Amino acid sequence: MSTYTAPIRDMQFVMNELAGFDQVAALPGNEEVSSDLVDAILEEANKFASGVLAPLNWTGDQEGAKWKDGQVFTATGWKDAYKQFSESGWTALACDPNYGGQGLPKLLSTAVMEMWKSANMAFSLCPMLTTGAIEALMLRGSDEQKDMYLPKMISGEWTGTMNLTEPQAGSDLAAVRTKAEPQGDGTYKIFGQKIFITYGDHDMTDNIIHLVLARLPDAPEGVKGISLFVVPKFMVNADGSLGARNDVHCVSIEHKLGIHASPTCVLAFGDNGGAVGTLIGEPNRGLEYMFIMMNEARFAVGMEGLALSERAYQHALQYAKDRIQGTDAGVRGGPKVSIIHHADVRRMLMSMKSQTEAMRALAYVVGAATDLAHHHEDQSVRARNQAFVDLMIPVVKGWLTENSIEIASTGVQVHGGMGFIEETGAAQHFRDARITAIYEGTTAIQANDLIGRKIARENGVTIKALIAEMRQVEAALDANDEALAAIRNSLAKGISAVEEAVGYILATYNADIKAASVGSVPFLKLLGIVAGGWQMARAALLSKDRQSEDFYRAKLVTARFYADHVLAQAPGLAYTVVNGASGALTLPEELF
Amino acid sequence: MSTYTAPIRDMQFVMNELAGFDQVAALPGNEEVSSDLVDAILEEANKFASGVLAPLNWTGDQEGAKWKDGQVFTATGWKDAYKQFSESGWTALACDPNYGGQGLPKLLSTAVMEMWKSANMAFSLCPMLTTGAIEALMLRGSDEQKDMYLPKMISGEWTGTMNLTEPQAGSDLAAVRTKAEPQGDGTYKIFGQKIFITYGDHDMTDNIIHLVLARLPDAPEGVKGISLFVVPKFMVNADGSLGARNDVHCVSIEHKLGIHASPTCVLAFGDNGGAVGTLIGEPNRGLEYMFIMMNEARFAVGMEGLALSERAYQHALQYAKDRIQGTDAGVRGGPKVSIIHHADVRRMLMSMKSQTEAMRALAYVVGAATDLAHHHEDQSVRARNQAFVDLMIPVVKGWLTENSIEIASTGVQVHGGMGFIEETGAAQHFRDARITAIYEGTTAIQANDLIGRKIARENGVTIKALIAEMRQVEAALDANDEALAAIRNSLAKGISAVEEAVGYILATYNADIKAASVGSVPFLKLLGIVAGGWQMARAALLSKDRQSEDFYRAKLVTARFYADHVLAQAPGLAYTVVNGASGALTLPEELF
Repeated sequence: MSTYTAPIRDMQFVMNELAGFDQVAALPGNEEVSSDLVDAILEEANKFASGVLAPLNWTGDQEGAKWKDGQVFTATGWKDAYKQFSESGWTALACDPNYGGQGLPKLLSTAVMEMWKSANMAFSLCPMLTTGAIEALMLRGSDEQKDMYLPKMISGEWTGTMNLTEPQAGSDLAAVRTKAEPQGDGTYKIFGQKIFITYGDHDMTDNIIHLVLARLPDAPEGVKGISLFVVPKFMVNADGSLGARNDVHCVSIEHKLGIHASPTCVLAFGDNGGAVGTLIGEPNRGLEYMFIMMNEARFAVGMEGLALSERAYQHALQYAKDRIQGTDAGVRGGPKVSIIHHADVRRMLMSMKSQTEAMRALAYVVGAATDLAHHHEDQSVRARNQAFVDLMIPVVKGWLTENSIEIASTGVQVHGGMGFIEETGAAQHFRDARITAIYEGTTAIQANDLIGRKIARENGVTIKALIAEMRQVEAALDANDEALAAIRNSLAKGISAVEEAVGYILATYNADIKAASVGSVPFLKLLGIVAGGWQMARAALLSKDRQSEDFYRAKLVTARFYADHVLAQAPGLAYTVVNGASGALTLPEELF
Repeated sequence: MSTYTAPIRDMQFVMNELAGFDQVAALPGNEEVSSDLVDAILEEANKFASGVLAPLNWTGDQEGAKWKDGQVFTATGWKDAYKQFSESGWTALACDPNYGGQGLPKLLSTAVMEMWKSANMAFSLCPMLTTGAIEALMLRGSDEQKDMYLPKMISGEWTGTMNLTEPQAGSDLAAVRTKAEPQGDGTYKIFGQKIFITYGDHDMTDNIIHLVLARLPDAPEGVKGISLFVVPKFMVNADGSLGARNDVHCVSIEHKLGIHASPTCVLAFGDNGGAVGTLIGEPNRGLEYMFIMMNEARFAVGMEGLALSERAYQHALQYAKDRIQGTDAGVRGGPKVSIIHHADVRRMLMSMKSQTEAMRALAYVVGAATDLAHHHEDQSVRARNQAFVDLMIPVVKGWLTENSIEIASTGVQVHGGMGFIEETGAAQHFRDARITAIYEGTTAIQANDLIGRKIARENGVTIKALIAEMRQVEAALDANDEALAAIRNSLAKGISAVEEAVGYILATYNADIKAASVGSVPFLKLLGIVAGGWQMARAALLSKDRQSEDFYRAKLVTARFYADHVLAQAPGLAYTVVNGASGALTLPEELF
């Protein structure tokens, strides 16, 4: 099976030189965050990711989670790995110190999260969902709820889930039908069925804390009548000990294309009298609370795209170095060589590598901006960073995940026929990646959010500021240096492509939302490619004068490749955004 | 599960109006080929594909082929379906009438083949491989070999296999090590192991005829020392009855990402004294014979890309019409609508539809050219068509298969979360499609063939003729008609992009083969996109004045979509071909 080693050098470069680690470390609350601490944490996380989680990735995929008699059993080794994971404190990394968390910055937890997801995405989903539930409780839970649940969730003794989807209500949460009946004692009885509940049941912890969207009696229809409840698997006594089994049960798990080791549950609430829960925050504001957490969740799924791309790249690279086949091009009868010598294998590897590095740079920059948006003392700095984060979240989610499917597919291709054999492991990344562009809002939903709420609604203020910032990097690229000039050329065209597309979106969105929407996914891809190119250009500028160091030599070549092979797609995408509506919208449904 | 109905109307349009059915029907040997006959065959094939093969597609995937005690057992229903398939005469469709075939033109068998592959790709591989073995025997077999094997292979009583790959010799057949020892009686004993042998063993027929690449004693090293042998699973007596079990055995089957119902075998030859075979043609010319059949085999795999795209499209379209979710954009609180109303779902469906139609048009045009190349009375017509076929085969193989992965992925996306659930069936197309870009020569191998043997070697003569032909279509598009002008605009830029890239390839190939090779896959994609756009532009021209008919209305919109969304990618690809070498080739191996 493939191994995994965290790309710590690139992570450090991105954190320190692109994402502005110093600024983050200077924020209030980060007084103890030093470079040394960060390096130590990265080293430890790498040990855990590569030593404990990565070896379980393929075995977990092959064995899968199992459902039997209403209970879910995780794959061999899962339970022990989770125990080690929580006991080592990894669940608490970015959480509130008031409830036992370590309060480390998002920029650092981003890098650590990348490792978990690269090493074992199916495993990483459990702490990820728990983090979502923790956030919701932190934001809107009562002190009683916080005291009851947070310490054990943060310590990892209990895990959490998010229960949104119902069969008739996938992306459209307005259609949620699960009911919550007040019992007059401050509790509610929940009745309904939820689907696609990640780690909705498992055997790794004693309790599971479900966050559930449901409707109160006489709640308004649609999205404004949905409330959020906390429903534990086992009731919790006043002393913190576990009480009765609650009426929430896993009635089946899904048979999926990928992430086989992550149980995707159908949960039945209230089949035996009602599942007991308490309301989080105020009635009918559940969806609003979900939206508050949405940036976090979408960012995390975007990180899955990055993480799977990195893993697929490492897997393919190893194979390309080991596999001997054919002779060097034009050298008939010469010695057999490893396939990394073949031009197209190199092209594939560079394509994987350069996009992965561009995605990492962009994601970490957004992660650092999140820290600034939350903790900077200057309100205007907070606001500016929040606007940037809001703009880029759909790009991080949509672009990174869509890319990961393609990159994992390229990883399969590098392996040739062996890539199609499951034991090779490359196919798993391809299967696992496929979900990332779907859950936590499909790419279309991200793209609609991007062009609507994030661009049209504010008349393009933030994106125009971003364009101006990118233009400054373009201007800094020395047109007399061969590599930098090539990067400058593609970046300039890319920025102009974004500008043109933004102009179209602003001119069209309110007048003809469907015409604007046809271009939304191509635009998301365009903005991702160009924003990634912007970061790669910054990396190239930082590398130019340090060509005696291997890392910077590689970075410059990689940035060059990205410009010639990836950024080059930008003008074509802008053309589609601007001209693509008629062809997409004209055909009557019956003529499809 | 998803159903399948052959897109007969589009097939007829492409055959008759784009591929020149009349010219094919006028060829010597096609005296009995009429439009009525073609329509009747398409109808019957559709009945068989949709009624018998399509329902087994998903059950076969879930059950898979099984290996037990040295034998392979196909999935439930497979054996009976194969019996019906051969008894209905489908195995004989395009084969030589002298051996029981029906001798129908390639253009027709292409459409029929598309149906088998759409309905059930894993099933279709068995007759496809048999066809390859039949071709080899037809081309270079002795009369004795032909009489012994061909009638029963053509009737479908026996199937055939192609044994090329060995563990150390994947794409590099020079490394083949299987040995053939002459026995002095005209027979040879074969010793060695072959991998990735599709339908290398199964329970559907009494005998299997293996074609095997092996080395004679003292054969030259490399590709010029490989001979081709025919090795039956059971020896065949002079009277045609089956004799002793030959020493070739299936020692395992692969656990694959897709095409689970198609057994991919490891075959051991000669573990118990030697497998008896006879030489086909002359010694040491086996690879040359393989090359003769290569166009046929690569074309067939290209058709898999088309066929899976069509199936994925039908699957996604049905879901998009049935699934009710959300309201029309901008109509909050309006009635719930089927998701085909949503702009991005339409975009995805149009993207699948338009590319599938472009691929069908291009493939059938190449199929018709193959008929002309083989059977036209005028030698210059034969030569011109053969040159076109030779140029386009790597494009049909490479572009159609790479596209099918993306199109099947889009099909999953249309389904949202349900797409990731195996029972939905959309994921199967995605898994099945992945192999098509690998076997029968990876996309890189196709692309190398394209820029080397098919373009550089003849200094671009054929591609320049193609460019000139495409320019004529461009010129015919009325710049004053909105839709045609849009198509013209994208087609013109596309053709220029091909021209620019060809110029680079011709200038670079001999001087710096690696620099040219970096651009080979992007160029293959570019040529595919533009050649597909050329056919869609022809279709648009034929549709323009028939807008009262639904079919032509849909075709014009679809061609327009293709121009704005697909052809638009062409200039970016040309940029990468021309500028992409440095970034791909500079990084030292140790810095990856």
